[in-house]
Amino acid sequence: MPIKNGEQYLQRIDDNLPDIRIAGEQVEGKISEHKAFKGLMGTQASMYDMQQEDKWKAVMTYSSPLTGDPAGLSFMQPKTKRDLASRRKMMQAWAYKHHGFLGRAPDYMNTALMAFSAACGLLEEKNPRYASNLRKYYEYCRDNDITLSHVFIQPKAGRVETFLRTFEEPAAARVVDKNKDGIVIRGAFLLDTQGATSDEILVLPAPFPSGGAEDSPFAFAFAAPSNLPGIRYVCRESFVGGESAYNYPLSSRFEEMDTLVIFDEALIPWDRVFICGDENMLFKLVDESRFHTHTSTQIMCKNIAKTEFLLGTIETMVEAAGLDSHAHVIEKVTEVIVALETLKALQLAAEKGAARDRWGSMLPDRKPLLAANAYFPKIYPRMIEIIQLIGASGLIMIPDEKDFDTEISGQLNTYLKGIDLNAKGNVQLSRLGWELSVSAFGGRQTIYERFFFGNSSTVNNRLYNGYPGREAFKRRVKDFLS
Amino acid sequence: MPIKNGEQYLQRIDDNLPDIRIAGEQVEGKISEHKAFKGLMGTQASMYDMQQEDKWKAVMTYSSPLTGDPAGLSFMQPKTKRDLASRRKMMQAWAYKHHGFLGRAPDYMNTALMAFSAACGLLEEKNPRYASNLRKYYEYCRDNDITLSHVFIQPKAGRVETFLRTFEEPAAARVVDKNKDGIVIRGAFLLDTQGATSDEILVLPAPFPSGGAEDSPFAFAFAAPSNLPGIRYVCRESFVGGESAYNYPLSSRFEEMDTLVIFDEALIPWDRVFICGDENMLFKLVDESRFHTHTSTQIMCKNIAKTEFLLGTIETMVEAAGLDSHAHVIEKVTEVIVALETLKALQLAAEKGAARDRWGSMLPDRKPLLAANAYFPKIYPRMIEIIQLIGASGLIMIPDEKDFDTEISGQLNTYLKGIDLNAKGNVQLSRLGWELSVSAFGGRQTIYERFFFGNSSTVNNRLYNGYPGREAFKRRVKDFLS
Amino acid sequence: MPIKNGEQYLQRIDDNLPDIRIAGEQVEGKISEHKAFKGLMGTQASMYDMQQEDKWKAVMTYSSPLTGDPAGLSFMQPKTKRDLASRRKMMQAWAYKHHGFLGRAPDYMNTALMAFSAACGLLEEKNPRYASNLRKYYEYCRDNDITLSHVFIQPKAGRVETFLRTFEEPAAARVVDKNKDGIVIRGAFLLDTQGATSDEILVLPAPFPSGGAEDSPFAFAFAAPSNLPGIRYVCRESFVGGESAYNYPLSSRFEEMDTLVIFDEALIPWDRVFICGDENMLFKLVDESRFHTHTSTQIMCKNIAKTEFLLGTIETMVEAAGLDSHAHVIEKVTEVIVALETLKALQLAAEKGAARDRWGSMLPDRKPLLAANAYFPKIYPRMIEIIQLIGASGLIMIPDEKDFDTEISGQLNTYLKGIDLNAKGNVQLSRLGWELSVSAFGGRQTIYERFFFGNSSTVNNRLYNGYPGREAFKRRVKDFLS
Amino acid sequence: MPIKNGEQYLQRIDDNLPDIRIAGEQVEGKISEHKAFKGLMGTQASMYDMQQEDKWKAVMTYSSPLTGDPAGLSFMQPKTKRDLASRRKMMQAWAYKHHGFLGRAPDYMNTALMAFSAACGLLEEKNPRYASNLRKYYEYCRDNDITLSHVFIQPKAGRVETFLRTFEEPAAARVVDKNKDGIVIRGAFLLDTQGATSDEILVLPAPFPSGGAEDSPFAFAFAAPSNLPGIRYVCRESFVGGESAYNYPLSSRFEEMDTLVIFDEALIPWDRVFICGDENMLFKLVDESRFHTHTSTQIMCKNIAKTEFLLGTIETMVEAAGLDSHAHVIEKVTEVIVALETLKALQLAAEKGAARDRWGSMLPDRKPLLAANAYFPKIYPRMIEIIQLIGASGLIMIPDEKDFDTEISGQLNTYLKGIDLNAKGNVQLSRLGWELSVSAFGGRQTIYERFFFGNSSTVNNRLYNGYPGREAFKRRVKDFLS
Repeated sequence: MPIKNGEQYLQRIDDNLPDIRIAGEQVEGKISEHKAFKGLMGTQASMYDMQQEDKWKAVMTYSSPLTGDPAGLSFMQPKTKRDLASRRKMMQAWAYKHHGFLGRAPDYMNTALMAFSAACGLLEEKNPRYASNLRKYYEYCRDNDITLSHVFIQPKAGRVETFLRTFEEPAAARVVDKNKDGIVIRGAFLLDTQGATSDEILVLPAPFPSGGAEDSPFAFAFAAPSNLPGIRYVCRESFVGGESAYNYPLSSRFEEMDTLVIFDEALIPWDRVFICGDENMLFKLVDESRFHTHTSTQIMCKNIAKTEFLLGTIETMVEAAGLDSHAHVIEKVTEVIVALETLKALQLAAEKGAARDRWGSMLPDRKPLLAANAYFPKIYPRMIEIIQLIGASGLIMIPDEKDFDTEISGQLNTYLKGIDLNAKGNVQLSRLGWELSVSAFGGRQTIYERFFFGNSSTVNNRLYNGYPGREAFKRRVKDFLS
Repeated sequence: MPIKNGEQYLQRIDDNLPDIRIAGEQVEGKISEHKAFKGLMGTQASMYDMQQEDKWKAVMTYSSPLTGDPAGLSFMQPKTKRDLASRRKMMQAWAYKHHGFLGRAPDYMNTALMAFSAACGLLEEKNPRYASNLRKYYEYCRDNDITLSHVFIQPKAGRVETFLRTFEEPAAARVVDKNKDGIVIRGAFLLDTQGATSDEILVLPAPFPSGGAEDSPFAFAFAAPSNLPGIRYVCRESFVGGESAYNYPLSSRFEEMDTLVIFDEALIPWDRVFICGDENMLFKLVDESRFHTHTSTQIMCKNIAKTEFLLGTIETMVEAAGLDSHAHVIEKVTEVIVALETLKALQLAAEKGAARDRWGSMLPDRKPLLAANAYFPKIYPRMIEIIQLIGASGLIMIPDEKDFDTEISGQLNTYLKGIDLNAKGNVQLSRLGWELSVSAFGGRQTIYERFFFGNSSTVNNRLYNGYPGREAFKRRVKDFLS
Repeated sequence: MPIKNGEQYLQRIDDNLPDIRIAGEQVEGKISEHKAFKGLMGTQASMYDMQQEDKWKAVMTYSSPLTGDPAGLSFMQPKTKRDLASRRKMMQAWAYKHHGFLGRAPDYMNTALMAFSAACGLLEEKNPRYASNLRKYYEYCRDNDITLSHVFIQPKAGRVETFLRTFEEPAAARVVDKNKDGIVIRGAFLLDTQGATSDEILVLPAPFPSGGAEDSPFAFAFAAPSNLPGIRYVCRESFVGGESAYNYPLSSRFEEMDTLVIFDEALIPWDRVFICGDENMLFKLVDESRFHTHTSTQIMCKNIAKTEFLLGTIETMVEAAGLDSHAHVIEKVTEVIVALETLKALQLAAEKGAARDRWGSMLPDRKPLLAANAYFPKIYPRMIEIIQLIGASGLIMIPDEKDFDTEISGQLNTYLKGIDLNAKGNVQLSRLGWELSVSAFGGRQTIYERFFFGNSSTVNNRLYNGYPGREAFKRRVKDFLS
Repeated sequence: MPIKNGEQYLQRIDDNLPDIRIAGEQVEGKISEHKAFKGLMGTQASMYDMQQEDKWKAVMTYSSPLTGDPAGLSFMQPKTKRDLASRRKMMQAWAYKHHGFLGRAPDYMNTALMAFSAACGLLEEKNPRYASNLRKYYEYCRDNDITLSHVFIQPKAGRVETFLRTFEEPAAARVVDKNKDGIVIRGAFLLDTQGATSDEILVLPAPFPSGGAEDSPFAFAFAAPSNLPGIRYVCRESFVGGESAYNYPLSSRFEEMDTLVIFDEALIPWDRVFICGDENMLFKLVDESRFHTHTSTQIMCKNIAKTEFLLGTIETMVEAAGLDSHAHVIEKVTEVIVALETLKALQLAAEKGAARDRWGSMLPDRKPLLAANAYFPKIYPRMIEIIQLIGASGLIMIPDEKDFDTEISGQLNTYLKGIDLNAKGNVQLSRLGWELSVSAFGGRQTIYERFFFGNSSTVNNRLYNGYPGREAFKRRVKDFLS
């Protein structure tokens, strides 16, 4: 099947329901109608629909090199700056649909898989079959418009630091068996966002190190259908406030579930195995595929859309509360404007500075993207804090939509209106501010942005060590002093 | 009735149910069994119970000067430093019961009423009846252990700034009629915390100014039973996550509802009127009663208990995650320790520096309290941020208590345990961190602390203008330069 | 005279010595040999020399439209994006010569004058003679390579706020007489940076408002030779540490003197008068000429060069102290890298987004420049703080170059060396860090960057009010909610 | 000699001139008349004079237990809370004399020596002679009013980290010989503040670790006269601006020189040796003597005096500039007020919480002092930043005192006056602000405060590891959850 529409997206997930646990129960029936997943899946369906809409088709798709059929443009390997711009426009279209609230919109994993596949030459020498598996898996996903999730990180109980602390055998994910059909995996991974609402899952763990071994049971990479026997998804608490888009404008549409995904003797067929045993190759594949750089383009689109949405929200709140001449309010709004201009400029710089890499990809300049990856986790919580500081008690005093349907509506209309905004609109705006900055949905968004690409130490090291040109600046100072 | 116990507290509220609206419905039946109020009322009942427990009785009560019966000690006017210490110990006892999460534990309003009543001499000259009303009302509350809420602030729609923006008649609260029975009030007030779970309400609005008039309809102060006809409480969304203390350790116990309270032709009997018409007197009563100073003692107890609870939570999280040797973690924990030591020291300084005021009260030193009032709204959000930074994705990956009762419990036990902490304990700890720093309950607490005594501009001005001794420092510099 | 070289620059200033006071004395003889000015003038001379060097000539100059002679390229009105790029390259060449330490390198005022002149159409309607004066003055400066300073701001004693406080007649600058030869000016202006080392001075005061008058004595704009009778420059303390480039690598070369410039019945000839009496025109000329936008291009070049110099210094310090694996050091270095990438990206975005304005100039996009103008005053002090935090006591323990010429040099060599850096080099590096972050030279640079374009309130308002597109974001939120 | 006066202080230093190098020269003649030392020594002389002034004598001195003669009260071992209060009052008297700008006022080392001596029991078991040496040395210093400096830290070239980087033999300080007369030392120490202006030097290095050896050449502690042969003091650049108290109100009085002190085969007599060879004992002596706790009392006095001086300066600047109604100015002033109240409260808490330790000393509560030691290094730079933000360009536009004696004084008087402050006073105030926040003197003060008790990691660890009661808070949370 080439590009799918929303209906097809929903149906495929419903038809292939994985083992999903939430609040002590297993999901049964149509997951697309389950209250914890319905809103998100509806949003994502509307995004897939764009692929077949006349207005958007040209922006959203390209011809599959293999089949000639239309494929999602985020699967396309960029070979020119023009390709980069096309990819950006496609990603912007989706980002403005979800206003940046989906951390795992499908174009994220489409891009990741494209990057890994383009770099499959890395695997060629030692194991050409794995290289071929990876390339074919990419083609399969592209030409069938597969929706993917992925996992990297294991729970603390599976990590080497824990072992060093407790001297207990860690519950690290590992290959427990290999047989003619494939490899057998036991272990768990954290925060598989959208794991429950994707067709397939891609697994590339940070391996439990055993000294650079070439035959480590902890080093592997593979993909599998989400409903493969032996895979189970344990959901966190749902942060969907309810179905009312008035009461819960964000969580009713954008609540991506995160899961603990558990592999219990899951058998992965050989043609879905990309790495098995070689520790170093895992690091190389992540690093040299420039996975972070390629996905950063998608993330920039998301972050810019989100920042614009926050700026619009804040300015609307300022307007409704009549605060637009207060110096301390202006100061805060300008902080958000500076953030937006910064992100837009860094995106532009990455695209303008792109260059062809050894895999034939037109690779955006890493420097501004690494800088943006260090910047956004700091500025996002500040923008949310600004909403709290401007919204104040208005963010708390939020009656329900239903209150407006009772005999007290007259009183609400009198006392809760804003400047040039009726009470119902004003309360709705407050509820939006509340969902962003007070609710569990908003809280999870803040955590997510803080740790999107790892903790600050990881992100800083990536920038510090991946920043070319530092020697030139030191040289300049030495010349100046000599 | 002298001091009440928890049972009596619950019954009195249940018996005198006000007009309360929540999510489109009116509360009926026993409010103490309503899911939005049950947990809080249970907590508060256990606090009132302490008044009659042998272990606590001496700490919690004193003899009413009027009846000789035991009365809640937070009603006691402090006349000596020893009284101040007794008041502090009583307030600490309650604060450690609710760990600082109740912004409107009953001792807050007991203290406020004591301060206003002690200063009733202010009203004496112009209207001795009002002075007498205030004094008698205080005695009534003290000797009947009345639970009070109060309001100051009107919705934006009622404020003068709104008028200046829109040139529409503001919906400001006002006296619409006076008759032989009392005064008739129309208007609304914001954020009546615990309005729905108190016996009575005290109203002291910041008046809509009409030029220092002595007969302004916007200047008044009074008290009324919460269920007086013409008073209605409109609740915000409830942030109680559920009844499970495992899943929702905080919101199941400490969720104080905030309400919009609406007066619709409510008739206030003359003997409950304290000010009517005199704008300046309102300012004087708030300022010269040293209401802020007296209640700050209670707030310091609350804030210290809360900070200790946060420190304990953070250290437990650090321990469970095995992070206690990371420099950046140590840095963050020490920030919290510094906050705790600072608050404790400021409390001590206020008590040591106390002096008798003109009302005969032993008044704590305002300087350290005003400083603390400016400090806590900044440090509280930072402590919550520290929880986010240390807890990271652990704050998100929160399965439900019920998941541990299913067949997947073995997997959870394997993969979600912490260092020296089993999975169920570790998830519970995560849920506590989540309630503090991610959930709507936690978000509301952050907003509440940010704006406890007004926005930062108000708090700064109060400190700047109320800080004696500044001239001495300027003089020192001038002497140094001359 | 067309473009001048360094020798000619020095000689012209020496030959036309203004009335300059410093530390109780009047400057006499060659100012270019005076210890407070020598280093700076030498640096600036080397910059002018570049205009005639084969290597740089093409980058630094263009043909004067009037004479065909080479003129400084920063005088060129940009009409295409290519012109903008040429201007940027010219400005980068100078910026990398002074590493961003000159706030008033000549290209700053060359650009300002170009912007004002290009907008002289503003003056045309009401007073075509003023328009002509301005255009001719620009041509004169361009074709004679005049070095300019300028002033906007009056001392507090001359401002309206002071009047409102003291009810004394403010000492505001004003036209005290007009006669056939010109206008007579009395008053003073603050912080005429490089006033003492420029050929001419341009004066465009923020006028003392008298109600939008068209004949206000406080509203004027003019230019004059620096040594015009009746003009006096009072210097602040010199921050030149000494002549040794080892001891004072920065202040021995880059110390720009700031002066209080006093006009005492100075007669400005009519052909140098651009505005006289019309208050509104002053605001319009500054605003509608897009003076801030044009000069911001020059400032971005300066700020980027400076940030690169700081980054190089910090990384050299990290290397010499062996700190490059400390997480908290890496964190700080990455902050500086993020700042650099941000500035470079904003510069790129401004240039890419340029558009022709109504004066025929290719005007850079204001948005990223306004954002940069709000950003740099915050990040510069932080970068200096980072030098303090990394340099620590090494920034203090700075013996003199001469100590290395005495019998104690052996001991210094043993105890003060760094990692792979001998003691003399290590101390020199420390002295550089000291000049940046501890010395009066460095302190003045920090103040200068903090207030370059006004205080934060001014800068924020300029961004807030000058930011197009905000309505679109509000609209998006309203659509989302409806 | 019992307590000395200023004259005696000066003469003793002059008579026993050490080997001091500054800017390539050796100090000769009277150091008390040398421009780099004169101001500081004059200030310190006036402090010693207080010991004999009728007004201060009782506050400043007590009876030596050995001789009955008056001794400096900062030498007194506190045995009661009253003693602690006496010590505080003595230290306040000196702190208000130098307004907190002396980091090494004599009471600092007097206190340190008292703490070490009181804990000399630590040395008793292994080497009673060393214990006796330490006790006698303390008595000698106390009864002769010796002025001491001290050193802990070696240059990087002498540290183990350097060795690990370079694999070169580090130039670590060591005992190179022992003979019948004493031990022979070679090595260097950093930042001996006031080394050049003290009678004696106390050396307690952080030893180069050799595995807890009991006979390490790197582990030693001793005292020596500053002018002992083989000791040399290499000064940093002097930050004295000049002798004029108008131009340089701070550096003309308070510039404490820091030196690199070099031991070149210096022979330390046995009776001045306190530790020789025992690595662990060095750690124990510093830790278990509670040296940090005792000196923190002195530092609190200094920091409070300094904060009051900054507050007075800032408020005077605000007044002179007419800024006292600007919200952002009020916000900044209140930050300083909060800092002051915090420091005062922490000091009070430490004193109130004091308890007798095993050496018989009344030891202040460590918790608030450790918190203050973590707090002040962060808030001091912020207060200096506030001076920059409020002072703005006024901190730069600083003509010289001499300018007011020339014919331009009339113009200065007109244009540089403040609100209710003539020009000369206004410029003087600006120069004070400049010395605090822009000059090298001020810059060095900021570095000094940032690193007073070590870098932030050291200070945080000291608090984290030295904070009792943390278990109780964890326990409370565990009880809450169970």
